[in-house]
Amino acid sequence: MGPGDRASEHDIAWAETLGKRIGENGWVLLSGGRDAGVMDAVSLDAQAEGGLVIGVLPASDTDAVSEGVDVAIVTGMGSARNFINVLSSDVVVACGTTEAGTLSEIALALKANKHVVLLNS
Amino acid sequence: MGPGDRASEHDIAWAETLGKRIGENGWVLLSGGRDAGVMDAVSLDAQAEGGLVIGVLPASDTDAVSEGVDVAIVTGMGSARNFINVLSSDVVVACGTTEAGTLSEIALALKANKHVVLLNS
Amino acid sequence: MGPGDRASEHDIAWAETLGKRIGENGWVLLSGGRDAGVMDAVSLDAQAEGGLVIGVLPASDTDAVSEGVDVAIVTGMGSARNFINVLSSDVVVACGTTEAGTLSEIALALKANKHVVLLNS
Amino acid sequence: MGPGDRASEHDIAWAETLGKRIGENGWVLLSGGRDAGVMDAVSLDAQAEGGLVIGVLPASDTDAVSEGVDVAIVTGMGSARNFINVLSSDVVVACGTTEAGTLSEIALALKANKHVVLLNS
Repeated sequence: MGPGDRASEHDIAWAETLGKRIGENGWVLLSGGRDAGVMDAVSLDAQAEGGLVIGVLPASDTDAVSEGVDVAIVTGMGSARNFINVLSSDVVVACGTTEAGTLSEIALALKANKHVVLLNS
Repeated sequence: MGPGDRASEHDIAWAETLGKRIGENGWVLLSGGRDAGVMDAVSLDAQAEGGLVIGVLPASDTDAVSEGVDVAIVTGMGSARNFINVLSSDVVVACGTTEAGTLSEIALALKANKHVVLLNS
Repeated sequence: MGPGDRASEHDIAWAETLGKRIGENGWVLLSGGRDAGVMDAVSLDAQAEGGLVIGVLPASDTDAVSEGVDVAIVTGMGSARNFINVLSSDVVVACGTTEAGTLSEIALALKANKHVVLLNS
Repeated sequence: MGPGDRASEHDIAWAETLGKRIGENGWVLLSGGRDAGVMDAVSLDAQAEGGLVIGVLPASDTDAVSEGVDVAIVTGMGSARNFINVLSSDVVVACGTTEAGTLSEIALALKANKHVVLLNS
């Protein structure tokens, strides 16, 4: 989780490192799926290292999907798809915590009793 | 917005005052709709003062609806219904900010560029 | 329930008659909320006769809301909001059954054990 | 797509054959994810033949997930998750069309301009 269109260079760097580790460990990455910011960076690097990347998209089509996404889940639900990301994850990692959207996901994850890791906060 | 089953006495008192003001002004109250905590208190007092109370329920039936709700919107979506509450409101008021669920709603409201008021925080 | 942008004249006529009856009886109308087709017609006539009209919108704002809607519920969920309409209603009335969207709502209503009335089918 | 707890033997047989073909072709299967009826059968057989199986669950946890599911998407949205299944699929296949839930999915798929295949109908 992390900023989309307004991600900082540091956020992106953390996301790339995280993606590499996820791929190297053969984990499944669940991301926001769009071709922007943290979700794009983490998806591309996880995929490049052999991880399986599931992108849960806010739109009702796949026009803005990241090239790092292997399987796109199309929700058509806008930001309400954040709930699905949080509920479906064992661990929620936030790369950058400067945006309200990311803060809401952290709060949702804590409410759902998920493990939460904050990077670059 | 505010805690449900674990609301404090102060949270409830603020919710009751808020509900009275909403009703007296003839505003429409959109609440979480359940018969617990802040959402129950604000609904009962708003209704008692003549306000229209819409309760957006997380469950797929009306078993746990507050008696203060005039019209129940049944979502069957669990906490994802919080998005609907935030998007549908002109002003989001939080009574008590101690719970992750309420914090996530505040963050969602800020992201959606809504006016946010924090009471008892 | 019924067609939006491609409603026939007969669908609209049925919707207007239905709206009038809902308003005259002081019932609450839950509609799809947009300013098009059956949902627009039934909302305008129900409101004109004094009924309370709740519009459950697919969009994430109120740009396309019908003028007959008293309270807009903004879901940002697209057609997934049809589930909310069906779950929240005691009786589901379809004005025109020629479109797949309306058929899906009828099927959902039957699955949820709701009373279903088909007009102009 | 197809009946859950009340699937017929024929529905199940079709689902098993379909799952085998999906796995043999190396396709990704998106199913309803629960350990019941058609969604359980198709998931188990697709997985056994090497397909990747994504299960989009109605519940807010994975208690009732099929053993044939590789990655569970936890929606907490009840039957509203059917929208996600339909929007995320290139082809929608119905095994058995006797239940209202399946009929609603077929209608949704047609509305979303998806290819629809009916088996055992």
